[in-house]
Amino acid sequence: MDCIKNRRTIRKYKQEEIPAALLNELLEEAFRASTMGNMQLYSVVITRDQQVKEKLAPAHFNQPMVTSAPVVLTFCADFNRFSKWCKCRKAEPGYDNPISFINAASDALLVTQNFCTLAEAHGLGICYLGTTVYNPDKIVDVLQLPELVMPIATITVGYPDECPAQPERLPLEGILHEEVYHDYTSEDIERIYSAKEAMPENQHFVTINNKETLAQVFTDIRYKKADNEYMSEVLKKTLKQQGFRK
Amino acid sequence: MDCIKNRRTIRKYKQEEIPAALLNELLEEAFRASTMGNMQLYSVVITRDQQVKEKLAPAHFNQPMVTSAPVVLTFCADFNRFSKWCKCRKAEPGYDNPISFINAASDALLVTQNFCTLAEAHGLGICYLGTTVYNPDKIVDVLQLPELVMPIATITVGYPDECPAQPERLPLEGILHEEVYHDYTSEDIERIYSAKEAMPENQHFVTINNKETLAQVFTDIRYKKADNEYMSEVLKKTLKQQGFRK
Repeated sequence: MDCIKNRRTIRKYKQEEIPAALLNELLEEAFRASTMGNMQLYSVVITRDQQVKEKLAPAHFNQPMVTSAPVVLTFCADFNRFSKWCKCRKAEPGYDNPISFINAASDALLVTQNFCTLAEAHGLGICYLGTTVYNPDKIVDVLQLPELVMPIATITVGYPDECPAQPERLPLEGILHEEVYHDYTSEDIERIYSAKEAMPENQHFVTINNKETLAQVFTDIRYKKADNEYMSEVLKKTLKQQGFRK
Repeated sequence: MDCIKNRRTIRKYKQEEIPAALLNELLEEAFRASTMGNMQLYSVVITRDQQVKEKLAPAHFNQPMVTSAPVVLTFCADFNRFSKWCKCRKAEPGYDNPISFINAASDALLVTQNFCTLAEAHGLGICYLGTTVYNPDKIVDVLQLPELVMPIATITVGYPDECPAQPERLPLEGILHEEVYHDYTSEDIERIYSAKEAMPENQHFVTINNKETLAQVFTDIRYKKADNEYMSEVLKKTLKQQGFRK
């Protein structure tokens, strides 16, 4: 499993198509992930058409991978197919609620990660776009997602044309808790974050952004409270529009 | 990657401990999954203590794996650690909102699936407990999860003591959409679900539950509207209690 240990996100891809048969094979294997009651509460929209990519790009804040990758995959939480099946079979579906959204989103994310692992094991590179849940309304429009379908993860895929350094991760003790959660003291925080903060590239971020600390780069520039509150409203509105919220 | 293709959920485990060093190694590798802005918005609570397992069991509707597996892992969406870091660094965190919950939950689920793949590749068996989001309030209590921490996935882990048949999956065409979502007609539903419905074990489910169709087993017994609505309220209440909702 060195492909997981040594993985890195790939944002630059070769001008080389991914054979449809390979992509289908990887997706089919990915669908072996655990799924709630074997309901398979997800759908995947495959985008290869340049025009569709260009329509999707603004929803992803025009990150260049969307238009430069040979394939863009949008993994969706999907209770539409299952509900349609119920209606065809004299059964009354009851999945227009938040818990059903969470169940379907979980199914979709497990499959997303499974796909990423399989793709990387086959020499492909992927980039996970966190922007999917920031502008779900735009993605719903472009991909024509019906009620009870919500986009939850987007992956750009292609043959790697770069090999960036592996980003740092926090020390294991910062993430694991034995038996119960042991809340972090300031000394814990100090110990857990010191190596990250000492890295030249992270210190460089602080400098070029004119900030005093690395944390301020996150709170004041990258992931701001006002943006989070705005995007929370868009998320709630889109969940309502898609039928998962009253 | 045959370990993904041939995987099955394991619910019966040998009476054999998982070495702590192996578990830590697998978790550390799992943390290589993509994470929003490299914030690593998750924590993992490791349960080995039989008494804690017995306290967790009711939250998982007393599924026997919780008390019989050597290890139970609860993967949590965690903005607590990151927010504490911000506060220690003169930065004002703004992550007490729904979008931040979704970001952290996504991070946690990608790591969960990565861990499952690694565990299976090392000969372990896992069972994913969907019950985690049904009784999050009880899990919060037992594991003493502070504000901005929500349990999102639970995995029981151990050396397999069974080899069940692989469950069926829907045909690929039922899940994939080219370029845009093509909504399902009744003919599509017919084609996609016919093999599943024809399986003797699924027909047996219909019979023993005194139902007319397989879909009714889901809507009337396994995943009922009233239950979903009740659990949606618990979820909303717990998200509020944990600080992710106003």
